[in-house]
Amino acid sequence: MVASVLVVGGTHGNECNAPWLLQQWGPSFAALQRPRLKVQTALGNPRALQCCRRYIDRDLNRSFRGDLLQAQPSPADQWEVQRARELVQSFGPQGTKPCQVVIDLHSTTAAMGNSLVVYGRRPADLALAAACQERLGLPIYQHEHDPDQTGFMAEAWPCGLVLEVGPVPQGVISPVICQQTQLGLETLLDLLDEASQGPLQLRSPLRVHRHSGSLDLPRDSSGQPTACLHPARLKSDWTPLKPGAPLFQQGDGTVIPFSGEPDQVTVFSNEAAYQEKHIATSLARRVSIPCDPSWSRALSDLLQGVDR
Amino acid sequence: MVASVLVVGGTHGNECNAPWLLQQWGPSFAALQRPRLKVQTALGNPRALQCCRRYIDRDLNRSFRGDLLQAQPSPADQWEVQRARELVQSFGPQGTKPCQVVIDLHSTTAAMGNSLVVYGRRPADLALAAACQERLGLPIYQHEHDPDQTGFMAEAWPCGLVLEVGPVPQGVISPVICQQTQLGLETLLDLLDEASQGPLQLRSPLRVHRHSGSLDLPRDSSGQPTACLHPARLKSDWTPLKPGAPLFQQGDGTVIPFSGEPDQVTVFSNEAAYQEKHIATSLARRVSIPCDPSWSRALSDLLQGVDR
Repeated sequence: MVASVLVVGGTHGNECNAPWLLQQWGPSFAALQRPRLKVQTALGNPRALQCCRRYIDRDLNRSFRGDLLQAQPSPADQWEVQRARELVQSFGPQGTKPCQVVIDLHSTTAAMGNSLVVYGRRPADLALAAACQERLGLPIYQHEHDPDQTGFMAEAWPCGLVLEVGPVPQGVISPVICQQTQLGLETLLDLLDEASQGPLQLRSPLRVHRHSGSLDLPRDSSGQPTACLHPARLKSDWTPLKPGAPLFQQGDGTVIPFSGEPDQVTVFSNEAAYQEKHIATSLARRVSIPCDPSWSRALSDLLQGVDR
Repeated sequence: MVASVLVVGGTHGNECNAPWLLQQWGPSFAALQRPRLKVQTALGNPRALQCCRRYIDRDLNRSFRGDLLQAQPSPADQWEVQRARELVQSFGPQGTKPCQVVIDLHSTTAAMGNSLVVYGRRPADLALAAACQERLGLPIYQHEHDPDQTGFMAEAWPCGLVLEVGPVPQGVISPVICQQTQLGLETLLDLLDEASQGPLQLRSPLRVHRHSGSLDLPRDSSGQPTACLHPARLKSDWTPLKPGAPLFQQGDGTVIPFSGEPDQVTVFSNEAAYQEKHIATSLARRVSIPCDPSWSRALSDLLQGVDR
């Protein structure tokens, strides 16, 4: 068996850098070729990309829920539910062009740099994320236990990560963001290529920032924000937000300090798409986890088609 | 007569900083009070703001064309045409709450800093822009002679300017952008307050960047961009783009140099809203114009209700 990896750009139709790269490169471009991998590419949400909108009917990256994927298809289904099924039917592990791993390329308006998002604690995901962190030093956001945020694409494959790059406004192509995306993607493909030959050797503990909650802007009774994020937070994602530190700023300059628990950092501060979800910033706790050898074995077994 | 000034935020519904400031402040906020001015505020496009979209049916800031404003109203009219008429009927010089001047507050995804846009060469506009430039040193973009871009709000009042602040993604409130907006707005109101008492004394020549054209990204036969702006251009608005200098960059890294005429600068590089207009960046030529005393007289006469 040749291990197969799906690379998706444009899961959100106004994050246009990764889909542009994939379209410009074409499937035979050198950056996507690895000797021991079959790399397939797809545009996540081509209809939303056409309109430069995040989605048409609902967020595609919240549409890979088991109940939605397994429901009886109907012509009345929302577009993104249909598209999620199409992607799984084509590229899922039991699909017509089966892939064991998905790399989902995103961008954000938050100043997060080059980072990874992992969902939950699946061993193969942790192996790939840890190896990428050893190579590039990038921060990792671990998303779990948020009942309001489910149905992520990466969870619909046995192994899957999001590469998240920012800051960039929605709707513009930035060469800097393209370059960071390419660096992250090439590193992940290098590591998957290696892992398809045997377990990756992980030396350092995995450092993740584990989701601990989200904060909305203060709002008045009509739902209008009465403050915005404080300037100090806009360039401080991944750094501690201490109790008492400036968090919000009102229109007249009044500062509202953070009154939550200590030992948390912020992520996705001022991500434009999260305004409608009433998330001004998310909170996470730094956790260091010794790498377990079973993680690398799980990733290699998956890529080698070994069913333990 | 008390001189009256209209301050508009949210002419584009996804430029949310200025309308947020105006809503937070309310009309009686100190920053908007001047002893000799009546300052009125309005949200340009409240329906588009609700949806966080630039517009509903068409760009409001291209809808103040004489033919559209004067046409027989019909229920089938596009929303922004209706809204343009409403604003003129309420706040235009012959409106129910007449204003002589409009200040239209915008933001951009381009790294343009704090800047002014003037349309054409109306003396009162040039006086206000020159005085603001003397005080703040900000750059001025002079837009004229572009038949594809007409119907700007500022042109529907006897005197009107755009204050344009960036970079900020669409759909997020940034305290830095709010602060810059407040600085520009307060300076303009200070100057109008002074001008309502007599002609402003202008000492330095007015330096403008006069629109000379726009450039689209290179595209293939299907309309897909084959290159993005070169990294060197993304932080270089207002600086010269010399023939032979890097302009675009293809997905494989190939650089496409600028092959146009010398002595031009770029503005609005990677403004997200202009992607649909096929404008990747605009070009302008630096021009220095001695301030004519008639400019300041025109502005004062307008504010004092003098009809020469």
